[in-house]
Amino acid sequence: MTVLLTGFEPFDGDTVNPSWEAVGLVPGVRAVQVPCVFGAAVERLREAVAEHDPRVVVCVGQAGGRADVTVERVAVNLDDARIPDNAGRQPIDEPVVRGGPAAYFATLPVKACVAAARAVGVPASVSQSAGTFVCNHLFYGLMHLIATERPDIRGGFVHVPFAPGQVADRAAPSMPPALVAEALTAIVTAASSMDGDLRLVGGSLH
Amino acid sequence: MTVLLTGFEPFDGDTVNPSWEAVGLVPGVRAVQVPCVFGAAVERLREAVAEHDPRVVVCVGQAGGRADVTVERVAVNLDDARIPDNAGRQPIDEPVVRGGPAAYFATLPVKACVAAARAVGVPASVSQSAGTFVCNHLFYGLMHLIATERPDIRGGFVHVPFAPGQVADRAAPSMPPALVAEALTAIVTAASSMDGDLRLVGGSLH
Amino acid sequence: MTVLLTGFEPFDGDTVNPSWEAVGLVPGVRAVQVPCVFGAAVERLREAVAEHDPRVVVCVGQAGGRADVTVERVAVNLDDARIPDNAGRQPIDEPVVRGGPAAYFATLPVKACVAAARAVGVPASVSQSAGTFVCNHLFYGLMHLIATERPDIRGGFVHVPFAPGQVADRAAPSMPPALVAEALTAIVTAASSMDGDLRLVGGSLH
Amino acid sequence: MTVLLTGFEPFDGDTVNPSWEAVGLVPGVRAVQVPCVFGAAVERLREAVAEHDPRVVVCVGQAGGRADVTVERVAVNLDDARIPDNAGRQPIDEPVVRGGPAAYFATLPVKACVAAARAVGVPASVSQSAGTFVCNHLFYGLMHLIATERPDIRGGFVHVPFAPGQVADRAAPSMPPALVAEALTAIVTAASSMDGDLRLVGGSLH
Repeated sequence: MTVLLTGFEPFDGDTVNPSWEAVGLVPGVRAVQVPCVFGAAVERLREAVAEHDPRVVVCVGQAGGRADVTVERVAVNLDDARIPDNAGRQPIDEPVVRGGPAAYFATLPVKACVAAARAVGVPASVSQSAGTFVCNHLFYGLMHLIATERPDIRGGFVHVPFAPGQVADRAAPSMPPALVAEALTAIVTAASSMDGDLRLVGGSLH
Repeated sequence: MTVLLTGFEPFDGDTVNPSWEAVGLVPGVRAVQVPCVFGAAVERLREAVAEHDPRVVVCVGQAGGRADVTVERVAVNLDDARIPDNAGRQPIDEPVVRGGPAAYFATLPVKACVAAARAVGVPASVSQSAGTFVCNHLFYGLMHLIATERPDIRGGFVHVPFAPGQVADRAAPSMPPALVAEALTAIVTAASSMDGDLRLVGGSLH
Repeated sequence: MTVLLTGFEPFDGDTVNPSWEAVGLVPGVRAVQVPCVFGAAVERLREAVAEHDPRVVVCVGQAGGRADVTVERVAVNLDDARIPDNAGRQPIDEPVVRGGPAAYFATLPVKACVAAARAVGVPASVSQSAGTFVCNHLFYGLMHLIATERPDIRGGFVHVPFAPGQVADRAAPSMPPALVAEALTAIVTAASSMDGDLRLVGGSLH
Repeated sequence: MTVLLTGFEPFDGDTVNPSWEAVGLVPGVRAVQVPCVFGAAVERLREAVAEHDPRVVVCVGQAGGRADVTVERVAVNLDDARIPDNAGRQPIDEPVVRGGPAAYFATLPVKACVAAARAVGVPASVSQSAGTFVCNHLFYGLMHLIATERPDIRGGFVHVPFAPGQVADRAAPSMPPALVAEALTAIVTAASSMDGDLRLVGGSLH
């Protein structure tokens, strides 16, 4: 079963993006880098899907400040950029897809993905928001593609912490890309093999 | 213009709920307490809407651990309870409304509401997730009612911090209900008077 | 029994300092503002002690980012400034008092002070570090004065959160100065009336 | 130059202690495990110092919740246990050494140690408090030994984050012991080779 993973190029002044570092360490998958640019990120994803014809697609992005690997549950139809993207665009309160539904749920088994990462010893949890920047934009673009054109694909998004070298002089949480890659490997295995999700507690009070 | 505010009864072993304490201090509105129970919370809300016939409805709930007043942007069609509700029910990965859309956006002007709270000196921000417990459940129930039966109503949800007395022996953030009420007063004023929202930066990177 | 409270002038670009706002609201005490300047802060404190001849002295400062009122336990003989003070000085790894001991413990009953603040509903805890900026400098200066010249005085330091208006556009914890003043009132009452401290759990694992 | 590193046995219900895991991976040093017990920890340290006759001693402990490697600056003469130690003892507000000074500063070059860890890409910072549990107790015991009997030894304490496997189901910061060991290797090299410390900004506002 072909699995496609995408990681982002660096943004916000950084020279590395841990999502791309980690994706490159996952064995047996197609790994594609996407630009941190509204619009162009989704275009690159669509090209990669057309080229590799995957059955599972997991887009991966950096969530600086989070301490664990988070499997995103829901993509919202909203671009609201706190900083400009790598092309200098900063959309405020615009839809990702005009006329699209307010949100899509990931079709990965998110609870099983979290359980799989934890089973290999990597801190992980379900996240209820992928933000409103390019990560959510790409996630929504993926789910819209699946919903409208490629219902045979199972798709979702995973956020990963800073790499240690990015925050050596800050007290921010970090995780080595090699450890993130172990979680991603477990996640794509779970996503490739399961029908339906596990019934596990994983909600958020707020 | 009639404004309806709801606050929750206490839950999770607490004896007060700051959402209800604060709602009771907002002048010129109808204030209704709802139970912290899946299903019953929405029923009580529907009764209150039928009774008071409001044009603006803001449901308010406690977000223990958050430091500021947060205006929620999106309600998702998902009940996923980390703890049981006050009736002992703990749904896992069930829809709020079977067959409903994945999410609804608040129809309050969320950026303007945040700006209004800040203008009176109360820390506030936009939130991208109301969680998956009874708060999100009620928020989704409100927006579904508006979408399907009462498009004349403008509605949304606001999360508030712990009250100081709840966390006197913990180092958790808190805010006095009287200060929260000042924010809510500013928010309902903004929500009652504006057409459209302000174009302000307020997104989240993740 | 004469009680002296000191609060700081604003620093780091702020226009208010919640320590001074709160100190001004405590009834029945002498309130003196000190500059946020190494050296000059201690000089102003010594003048105020000479003028008012207090039996209890509590210096109060802002701890931006903390969520509760913290009663400091220990002052260290170290100036190590992360930012310049209000006179532009930025000492790095210098002693507060050359030849002074490495540290002094507060002579306030810190556990009883915390318990008193909590008893009036204000979040409070013991802190094991007052930092290495002007707050710790003043605290050390106070305890050195007590140890070497005025053993009749009971003294200590209390850190307080941001005021809400300082962080209206940030999600940082805050506390209204009026609420802080209630805690300070309870603290000076406990400090004035007790011999010895309460035996309460209040340590820190790290 | 002989370097002695100590790590702690597990405590608080855990089955591993990342301090011991990491210490065992540092090449070219003597590594000794100490019990998480007031009194016995210092006794074991004294035996190890007598046996190995080191010139540099760095005690290492777990600081669950911290995101980076922290080089401790000051040990205080205070045992104040929030939880019982591994022998069931829970001292409250007792001195480590009756009649000892209020505190000792580490004699490691703490700024240079932090810079060395960062230079190999590991997040690190100076900490102003080692808490009041067995870690601080051991640190104080070490510095008291150095001050009163072994002034030829350079000594200090380093706190390290949780290992990932300890917090797989929690969103707490973590760091793999192998990465911690890289930091410790850099730290003992800096501590062994430097006379005096670097003049670097590393203070704390509070």
